[in-house]
Amino acid sequence: MNSCPFCLKIQTLAQQLAPDCVWEFPHSHLFLGKWQFYHGYCVLVTKTHARELFDLATEERAALFEELTLAAKAIHLAVTPLKMNYELLGNQVPHLHWHLFPRFESDPEKLQPAWLRLARAEQDPHALAQAMAGPETPEKTRARIRNQLQQLGANSS
Amino acid sequence: MNSCPFCLKIQTLAQQLAPDCVWEFPHSHLFLGKWQFYHGYCVLVTKTHARELFDLATEERAALFEELTLAAKAIHLAVTPLKMNYELLGNQVPHLHWHLFPRFESDPEKLQPAWLRLARAEQDPHALAQAMAGPETPEKTRARIRNQLQQLGANSS
Repeated sequence: MNSCPFCLKIQTLAQQLAPDCVWEFPHSHLFLGKWQFYHGYCVLVTKTHARELFDLATEERAALFEELTLAAKAIHLAVTPLKMNYELLGNQVPHLHWHLFPRFESDPEKLQPAWLRLARAEQDPHALAQAMAGPETPEKTRARIRNQLQQLGANSS
Repeated sequence: MNSCPFCLKIQTLAQQLAPDCVWEFPHSHLFLGKWQFYHGYCVLVTKTHARELFDLATEERAALFEELTLAAKAIHLAVTPLKMNYELLGNQVPHLHWHLFPRFESDPEKLQPAWLRLARAEQDPHALAQAMAGPETPEKTRARIRNQLQQLGANSS
């Protein structure tokens, strides 16, 4: 597992809290992601290195799903989007992780998956800058989501 | 709820089984989807009309997540992809439904989300035909997935 970038990130966390970590749940870490055009966009990474949902034990999967739900609810309360998008892909890094994209009324592409904008961002510096720019500093967004998790009584570990 | 296309589809199912239905779980229906370039692509639709995961009761959400996992495992066993992609968006139809895309080694865009190909398919008839064409008839693919669900001992309702 040593070559898995998410396993390496989690090992680093054991030594010092990564600045992008919003919350450590018992079975996962919630990180603020770089695509802050989707204000509040986070990635929830499982502590266990597993490729597919059905590779986890039932009990761990159930706990993880509640962490996912709580994370989504906290983000939703923090940034009040129109809708949340939840995506578990792993095509590039096959270690279970959920992309949590808040989607907003103001987005002219709100009916489409976020990936169309992000594909353009990878081709064009202007689109990249736009996709990464949020309406406030990442510190403020992390604090906003963390505050909601605290109010929801989320477990930390 | 009467204007929700997924609620209408489920009402129709109560009268006669829709031909694209692969399985009826206690809390959801699994349908074979139209993008069979991703051979085995299915959509899992909740019976309850809800917008977000956190709008469901905890017990129903837990049961639903096990149905999702079982559906993904059955598809994986049926078509042996490289990886499954699990996506809950709802930007166009805000009634909880998961897109289950099997991803294959033979796909030149296997590192990217399926949506990039599907966006092209919506613009171009040739790309559309390619995105919809599977390696076998939909009947055979449904039977293949259903057979795996039976072997896995999936509940039906």
